[in-house]
Amino acid sequence: MPQTPHIEKHFTSGAVVRDVVIGMADGLTVPFALAAGLSGATVSSGIIVTAGLAEIVAGSIAMGLGGYLAGRSDAEHYDSEYKREIYEIEHLLDHEKDEVIEILETYGLTRAESMPIVESLATRPTDFADFMMRFELGLEKPEPKRALKSGATIGGAYIVGGLVPLMPYILMAEANASLKWSVAITVVALFVFGYVKGQFTGARALKSAVQTCLIGSLAAAAAFFIARLISA
Amino acid sequence: MPQTPHIEKHFTSGAVVRDVVIGMADGLTVPFALAAGLSGATVSSGIIVTAGLAEIVAGSIAMGLGGYLAGRSDAEHYDSEYKREIYEIEHLLDHEKDEVIEILETYGLTRAESMPIVESLATRPTDFADFMMRFELGLEKPEPKRALKSGATIGGAYIVGGLVPLMPYILMAEANASLKWSVAITVVALFVFGYVKGQFTGARALKSAVQTCLIGSLAAAAAFFIARLISA
Repeated sequence: MPQTPHIEKHFTSGAVVRDVVIGMADGLTVPFALAAGLSGATVSSGIIVTAGLAEIVAGSIAMGLGGYLAGRSDAEHYDSEYKREIYEIEHLLDHEKDEVIEILETYGLTRAESMPIVESLATRPTDFADFMMRFELGLEKPEPKRALKSGATIGGAYIVGGLVPLMPYILMAEANASLKWSVAITVVALFVFGYVKGQFTGARALKSAVQTCLIGSLAAAAAFFIARLISA
Repeated sequence: MPQTPHIEKHFTSGAVVRDVVIGMADGLTVPFALAAGLSGATVSSGIIVTAGLAEIVAGSIAMGLGGYLAGRSDAEHYDSEYKREIYEIEHLLDHEKDEVIEILETYGLTRAESMPIVESLATRPTDFADFMMRFELGLEKPEPKRALKSGATIGGAYIVGGLVPLMPYILMAEANASLKWSVAITVVALFVFGYVKGQFTGARALKSAVQTCLIGSLAAAAAFFIARLISA
């Protein structure tokens, strides 16, 4: 029998890629836009670096811890729904059996066709509950340690992404020249990031690259003009 | 037959609440921490407001557009996997039938018990594909317009959240006094936000409130000390 590699690929790379994408998309964009904005307000390079690093620290902690807690809360949500299913199977078995039949009816399956499965599940509460978690609620049992990995991946990706646009401001004294370099390397970084992201997520890579550049540029341009407007 | 309100509740409120949480958690935290950080670097109130508003604009665009594209890519991913399932059902029907049997075996169901369902699905390719999307891949058909709503909700929540910590800096001239007010109102806002979030997501509300405050405070303290270190 042939293997089904797309399932495994979908599931294992999915979560990590998604976390890197979440962290790096914002990391490349927001510190970039903030630095551009402050350049628009003709603030000194030193303050831009201070603000940029403060933003990276704040953003990576907020997003990383946020991701960690979201992962934890997914796990808790799964557990609480699981207990509920077990309770319902123990106390409202006929109702749960009807639920399975109704769900399977949406796929055009008749009561008679579903009956063997339903009767079999009804004899094994934990299998029944697992089945309902997937089929009724569409919930996946979260991988243990997922929350911790997710938080660290998001936070780390944010830091890596955020240091790219800030590098010219750190290395050069003059904010205007730094801005030009920052725009240049960040647009390239956004393009490469969007391209790779597209390949991982199965989207058209070039389209993804252009979209990612557009978000970054739009955010930076908006921040630039808002900052210039305020400081004028 | 009794209704099953927890399903509907889970599914409809889930996506919007999650989007508000994503946007507001970062909106309350990052501009707060950035402003606190810049106060630590003894920067003028005017520059803090400029940086803060630039950050809010950049963050809401980055997160809003990011959420929009993530929603779009979920929809595209669903479509491409769906086409793949249809292709496999048309060209590798026996393999797909074996897959269903194997999946159902993980719930303790025998080949004989699963057979009526499998044979019935095999006569209706689209029902079969829908079944596989849910059961094999765990994918939910994305609601139309989900991407747009998601992006707007995340971006809007970021702006609302971000304006809270910035308000004292906008209203008061002196950065040090503003910092104290900003900390005070933001900690209260984080607490209320965490509490309400906890009630919506089914977590313990008080625990959620404390966690949310901790993330914000940690991010702000880290940004404050980093900024003070650099500017010293």
